[in-house]
Amino acid sequence: MNEYDITVIGSGPGGYIAAIRAAQLGFKTAIVEKEENLGGICLNWGCIPTKSLLRASEVYRLIRRSEEFGIKVKDTSFDIQSIVKYSRNVVDKLSSGVEYLMKKNNIKVHQGFGKLAGNRTIKILNDKKEEEISSKHIILATGVRARNLPGIEVDGDLIWNAQHAMTPKKLPKSLLIIGSGAIGIEFASFYSTLGVDVTIIEVKDTILPLEDKDISNLAQEIFTKQGIKIYTSNSVKTFTKNKDSVQVQLSGGDNKEFDRVIVAVGVQANTENIGLENTKIKLSPSGFIETNEWYETSESSVYAIGDVAGPPCLAHKASHEAVICVEKIAGKNAHKLKKECIPNCTYSHPQVASVGLTEEQAIKSGYDIKVGKFHSNFNGKSIALSETEGLVKTIIDKKTGELLGSHMIGAEVTELISNFALAKQLEGTDFDIKSTIFPHPTISEMIHESVLAADGESLNS
Amino acid sequence: MNEYDITVIGSGPGGYIAAIRAAQLGFKTAIVEKEENLGGICLNWGCIPTKSLLRASEVYRLIRRSEEFGIKVKDTSFDIQSIVKYSRNVVDKLSSGVEYLMKKNNIKVHQGFGKLAGNRTIKILNDKKEEEISSKHIILATGVRARNLPGIEVDGDLIWNAQHAMTPKKLPKSLLIIGSGAIGIEFASFYSTLGVDVTIIEVKDTILPLEDKDISNLAQEIFTKQGIKIYTSNSVKTFTKNKDSVQVQLSGGDNKEFDRVIVAVGVQANTENIGLENTKIKLSPSGFIETNEWYETSESSVYAIGDVAGPPCLAHKASHEAVICVEKIAGKNAHKLKKECIPNCTYSHPQVASVGLTEEQAIKSGYDIKVGKFHSNFNGKSIALSETEGLVKTIIDKKTGELLGSHMIGAEVTELISNFALAKQLEGTDFDIKSTIFPHPTISEMIHESVLAADGESLNS
Repeated sequence: MNEYDITVIGSGPGGYIAAIRAAQLGFKTAIVEKEENLGGICLNWGCIPTKSLLRASEVYRLIRRSEEFGIKVKDTSFDIQSIVKYSRNVVDKLSSGVEYLMKKNNIKVHQGFGKLAGNRTIKILNDKKEEEISSKHIILATGVRARNLPGIEVDGDLIWNAQHAMTPKKLPKSLLIIGSGAIGIEFASFYSTLGVDVTIIEVKDTILPLEDKDISNLAQEIFTKQGIKIYTSNSVKTFTKNKDSVQVQLSGGDNKEFDRVIVAVGVQANTENIGLENTKIKLSPSGFIETNEWYETSESSVYAIGDVAGPPCLAHKASHEAVICVEKIAGKNAHKLKKECIPNCTYSHPQVASVGLTEEQAIKSGYDIKVGKFHSNFNGKSIALSETEGLVKTIIDKKTGELLGSHMIGAEVTELISNFALAKQLEGTDFDIKSTIFPHPTISEMIHESVLAADGESLNS
Repeated sequence: MNEYDITVIGSGPGGYIAAIRAAQLGFKTAIVEKEENLGGICLNWGCIPTKSLLRASEVYRLIRRSEEFGIKVKDTSFDIQSIVKYSRNVVDKLSSGVEYLMKKNNIKVHQGFGKLAGNRTIKILNDKKEEEISSKHIILATGVRARNLPGIEVDGDLIWNAQHAMTPKKLPKSLLIIGSGAIGIEFASFYSTLGVDVTIIEVKDTILPLEDKDISNLAQEIFTKQGIKIYTSNSVKTFTKNKDSVQVQLSGGDNKEFDRVIVAVGVQANTENIGLENTKIKLSPSGFIETNEWYETSESSVYAIGDVAGPPCLAHKASHEAVICVEKIAGKNAHKLKKECIPNCTYSHPQVASVGLTEEQAIKSGYDIKVGKFHSNFNGKSIALSETEGLVKTIIDKKTGELLGSHMIGAEVTELISNFALAKQLEGTDFDIKSTIFPHPTISEMIHESVLAADGESLNS
């Protein structure tokens, strides 16, 4: 029986990063993955392919706007199969990349479904064989899967999950997206850009319901102008499948026919059949594995990181937890993850990104706040790019100057939000942002201006 | 005679920001501008129009690559006049924006050439009249202009300065660019993307000579692959004008004919005819106005900010100095500008950005350093965008973890460099960057990885 120091179950960003860090620290390391390709959902069916599809649609959007920049094209067209192929090629590159990293770091990859068998052993089941390995430490990184909606079962034909939505055989004429979190909004943006008639329904009263209300409202305004139909405070009342379409009655009364439906209503933890019954591991009321701040479960030497250990279900949270978990096992002086410093990104057009408290949350938490806002149409670079729809909003503690939250919508904001993640990590204040020299002309100047605006010192608006 | 608290001469980013901040602080404020349009060189003939031209060429580049993303276009073409028109429209918008800001803040605009007349008075000369105003404080923000090369006088026909280069009537077939600083490189990138046969000569041994050698070398490699011809350690030996071309012999021996030439060999301060002889103001050996760290000149109540007060000649340095200078006049607790925290940007394709010490400078300064590098072709977002040429390089003080310098080339790095400007401003260390959660998938993760790499802890390469 193979014996390891550290074995990770699941090869998503949490899992493979845990394995790499373990190997770097000198542990004999293995990783168990049930799928043929390494990288988990994020890499194979999540972050990476969606960003590739969105890149293609962004190029298409620019081509459609090219005359504005003095460029002429005749007969723009696209082939959805080729766009999908582009995204699958990106996935293949990255999955091979993880394979390369495993080899380079001498990490043993076990193909199969890993199950805790008690006494520090793992049963690995696959089509060909069943094997058992033992490991001093076991890290569970089994992730999550899409939640189902009762009565609207995903069939891959009329009703799609994210995986179907990122590998369409042909474009539907009309599309209903149920749920307006990051995943729903990204698909809405992708399909709408390609000319599909997109409708979003959201049970909450704003789209992107985790975001600050000003951002959600501006997003809704911009998406609506782009032609996306949005029904907030609505759910599906009746749902009927036709031969090649569905008929949907919304709780608000509207009754509509759609070619296809994407269900994007959140996730649930992958905790079934992984042998938890052989351990003392506890689940939270919402079904995630409970851990302490060092990712230790109630079972000695078994850890859980990433999505399966609870929200926010984000790859960068998972990989960060991976490093902390392994460094702690190694007895290194690991740092604790600050939950309030985890950024959120939605890669639609325009992009949305945030970190920390919304205005509403800050007020509810009892802070006396000041709020600064700066709009893209006053930013030189945004005007030069002709991307003038956007806003940076910063929430600051009036008493201490602490940066409580930052909320952005517009071009490249997913690349800008790290400024605030970093400032928050460093416990920077509004004065620090004011003192920082942001280069001109960049969109990043909006960060500076939004903080100045909180004191009525905005320079360009 | 009009009397003001603060008068600013020059309406570039240093000047107009000084005026706005002064007005915000309750000063009766005026601005003197010799040109019809407000905004100075940066806005009218520098940063802003070049970024607009580069945006157009970037769209053209993407269209030419569209098949890669599954998109087909027929007969792509462009009209250089329309591209120029796009950029001039952007300029008009921003210049009107400055006009609006002057009105909104009750800042009196005096059209004309401002000249210090002693005793806190300024003579303003224009075609129509000569007037005199008095001001308790006078801020000189007269900027710089392009330096000439003896023997290669700019004629606007065969030999262009930046202004001619950003308003071409037609595209030359071949183009020689003398000088490979940010301006030269940006024009090289713009014209080369549009199909012009571009040659750069640089007297130093690398292009972008202010940048870290690794970045300059990678830039040269990428530009060369794009078809730009680069001659470093070369100058013009002989130069002959023909009827519709020039013949150039390089110091290295090559002899070539070019349709047009752009001279981009640095700048000189605008200090002539502004009445310095009526003051105690001193110039540095290189011709810039000398000031102390609060931008006070040797003449009481006269200040100098921005380009005219010395390099680096960058708009964001100017506007930052403007705020400091005015806050100091107002008796506020102003912060001192940290020169080592001023970022540099070049908006070519790929972009280049940096802040702080190069590896060479750090070693020369006696630091014991560690260096981390992370290449774009290991970064998920860069692969998803199909922009895999790039590098982030970070120089860290081994003893203290201080972030001495950061050097970037690749997609969107001009938007990323503020992370390091901010970290340096906050006196952050490598540990702080390691602890920060950068969102996935973004190019900003390369910042994290480059710092990890300095300790052999890189996770994705």
